[in-house]
Amino acid sequence: MNKQRKYLFEEVYEYLWQRIERSDWKTGDKLPSIRELSMEMNVHRLTVYKAYQMLKQQGKVFVKDKSGYYVQGSSTSPIDGHSLLRANEKTYTLSEIHQQSVQYQFSQALIDPNLLPNHFLSDYVKKVFDLYPKVLSTYSTVQGDMELRDTLATYFITRYKTHLSHDDILITSGSQQALHLISQLFIKPRDTVLLERPSYSAAIDIFKSQDAHLIAIDIQPYGYDLEKVEMLMKQYKPRLFYVNPTFHNPTGYTVPTAQRKKLVELAERYNCVIVEDDAYHDIYFEKAPPPPLYTFDTAGVVIYVRSFCKYVSPGLRVAACVVPPAMKDGLLTVKGLADNGSPLLNQKIFLHYFSSPRLQQHLEKLRIALQIRKEIMEEELQKTNWSWISPDGGLNLWVQLPDPLPTDQLLQKAIENSVSFVPGLICDPLQQGFSSSLRLSYSYANEEQLRVGVRRLIEVVNTYA
Amino acid sequence: MNKQRKYLFEEVYEYLWQRIERSDWKTGDKLPSIRELSMEMNVHRLTVYKAYQMLKQQGKVFVKDKSGYYVQGSSTSPIDGHSLLRANEKTYTLSEIHQQSVQYQFSQALIDPNLLPNHFLSDYVKKVFDLYPKVLSTYSTVQGDMELRDTLATYFITRYKTHLSHDDILITSGSQQALHLISQLFIKPRDTVLLERPSYSAAIDIFKSQDAHLIAIDIQPYGYDLEKVEMLMKQYKPRLFYVNPTFHNPTGYTVPTAQRKKLVELAERYNCVIVEDDAYHDIYFEKAPPPPLYTFDTAGVVIYVRSFCKYVSPGLRVAACVVPPAMKDGLLTVKGLADNGSPLLNQKIFLHYFSSPRLQQHLEKLRIALQIRKEIMEEELQKTNWSWISPDGGLNLWVQLPDPLPTDQLLQKAIENSVSFVPGLICDPLQQGFSSSLRLSYSYANEEQLRVGVRRLIEVVNTYA
Repeated sequence: MNKQRKYLFEEVYEYLWQRIERSDWKTGDKLPSIRELSMEMNVHRLTVYKAYQMLKQQGKVFVKDKSGYYVQGSSTSPIDGHSLLRANEKTYTLSEIHQQSVQYQFSQALIDPNLLPNHFLSDYVKKVFDLYPKVLSTYSTVQGDMELRDTLATYFITRYKTHLSHDDILITSGSQQALHLISQLFIKPRDTVLLERPSYSAAIDIFKSQDAHLIAIDIQPYGYDLEKVEMLMKQYKPRLFYVNPTFHNPTGYTVPTAQRKKLVELAERYNCVIVEDDAYHDIYFEKAPPPPLYTFDTAGVVIYVRSFCKYVSPGLRVAACVVPPAMKDGLLTVKGLADNGSPLLNQKIFLHYFSSPRLQQHLEKLRIALQIRKEIMEEELQKTNWSWISPDGGLNLWVQLPDPLPTDQLLQKAIENSVSFVPGLICDPLQQGFSSSLRLSYSYANEEQLRVGVRRLIEVVNTYA
Repeated sequence: MNKQRKYLFEEVYEYLWQRIERSDWKTGDKLPSIRELSMEMNVHRLTVYKAYQMLKQQGKVFVKDKSGYYVQGSSTSPIDGHSLLRANEKTYTLSEIHQQSVQYQFSQALIDPNLLPNHFLSDYVKKVFDLYPKVLSTYSTVQGDMELRDTLATYFITRYKTHLSHDDILITSGSQQALHLISQLFIKPRDTVLLERPSYSAAIDIFKSQDAHLIAIDIQPYGYDLEKVEMLMKQYKPRLFYVNPTFHNPTGYTVPTAQRKKLVELAERYNCVIVEDDAYHDIYFEKAPPPPLYTFDTAGVVIYVRSFCKYVSPGLRVAACVVPPAMKDGLLTVKGLADNGSPLLNQKIFLHYFSSPRLQQHLEKLRIALQIRKEIMEEELQKTNWSWISPDGGLNLWVQLPDPLPTDQLLQKAIENSVSFVPGLICDPLQQGFSSSLRLSYSYANEEQLRVGVRRLIEVVNTYA
């Protein structure tokens, strides 16, 4: 999709919408023709046509026979950029896919609740209430509970030998919130954001909702083409680069240590903030991944977003960010505006589980369980001519079909067969490719469901082959 | 403060900042003089001076003797509009006041934790874990837990005889988040927002952070001058009107029923969204307040933000919004982007306390306790020549001193004496008045603290009289 044309069309839309709002044209008035407007605004007729279609969908204008567009009575409510974006999308959104109730769930990169420490967490919760009887009648500070931040700082120091303190840590309600706050702080409309291609679709949505101009760099099994990264930074001066370098979502690739160092240097040179999303760091099968990018950062260009909750308790919604000192005040301000601090109860529950030896025991078991599930999915897929690179960690397989397929129809058909997956297109920041790619999460379905579901999926795909 | 000038100054700031970023001027380069730039940009010299001062504070430029401004080396990180706002404020911010550790705490409109049902909530939490053993390993939907939304819908129907369903309700992480989401959805830079004067300072901050153009209508003991409201709506076409019509913060005033109906009609006529913040609805002393504005809304112009947590458990961070159907998708989209849904645990804990008979018992006791505290504060204040209108509910007294005082110094002095309050200026959307007004919350301090603290405050004020 051509980015430029999209902006133009939005501008025409906004122009028309505002003039109708200001009653320059009143209910029942005939609006300028597509031809007139395209000449007046010096844009392609298709651009005007699209703007009118959007206004029509939103009940702002109507068409009388073939005589043109007219202003509709104002029964509609104000419209925002987000609904604009949504109305413009042709394919399933991720949340629409997730709303499908299916038996074989390969679309959500979530861990099967049966693999999570539910029982122990309940015990810890009771402990929390004994320790902090007034935890529910108190707000947390905006930055997050001090005890939790202290514990996390110690953890990071011990693990990565880098110095930091509770002052450098901000607690957010999940990594989704962290990305949203960062995007609000740094991105003005039409600022350039660099993303990996493919990338995490919720992050793509967040940056789009800020009207960022998205550019992308391919992520490969060996990492990035750093020369190209440098060229893009030089040419576009991106405000930030959103990376997920460890068991990358959706591909599972991990960027090697040497590239990590180099990337931080590039970011420093081109004054580009790196947002490092590290949700899968601890979900490895054989050996621990390289240290995070932020550990190589001496200039304060990397914001490190670490979600622990995926494998402890997604329901708690607790994530931690390591924030360079110069960015802290800004992030605290947007966090304060957004919700005035994450709930204290959730932070305390997480803290007590996190500090207990249970966590390591749980993780060891979880790694084995996930590896087994991955291998079962791969075993079934080996019966096809599909290809993928077997990941060393994370929750997903990024599968390539031999030929492009009509993804929407395929997904529809799969859902009818009670199987869900994420189409490649949704993971493309440029929304134009990956029509032969699927993301299959092996973490949610149990072993039996994995076998049956993958077989069903193969059958559905084969009807198109 | 002149709104126009502020924007100008920000524009000059941004212009300079961006040119430095683009290396039009490099480290060590001399920048244009104030005189040159004011001529080039056709702005007042003071405007340029302010922009340079801001850049200096942020380490972006430096002054060499008296020879002018020079570009500083880029050790600083990117700056956003928020830090800009903050740096521009001369007075204490609310959160700075709240960070002060004082013995006599009259600045936070929070309820004394000793008056909250901590013990019973702990029991309910254990119940929640028995009922939903996997509550921590599950996400809520973006809109919020269905069971909670059903319960709230039934509650609203029973109480206000208006029809609505779980579909019309959105759960947010506190009313702060609700206001923030609404503001993100509806406000583009320089859109006009109508507020009450005085108003809730966090709301003022939220709308400012969206670069809204703020206009204000006085709130009086009898409500608003509706003719003036109509005039403002006609003239400025505000995108939304943020109201807190029931035991208003900070004044405690309540808008009467007849005005509520009329206001909804006006909003409908002028296509202005009303955001009704109703955090104090149940905190009345003698009789229940009039029904909320949204109950008079047939056209879908009112978003009703109801926080229950203030008097149950602030730490849970659960609020409910009643959202007109046409606005629902937009709000769900911004909520999804912001945090993908509030934590399920918190919603379930709140649900079970909310549905229990304990809630009404707690509320009855709480009302008496708060009324007693209010009366103690008033008893002490009666010894002065200060004036206030005794509120019928809520958590605050809005007190007028006979003369304007240097608020910042007064607050500083009060804090030195271990007393905190909120200066009137902070509650002014126009940031220019109320220099003889104080907001004193009687809900947090206990009876002894109220007596001693108010006496100390009177002493401090008297040193200025």
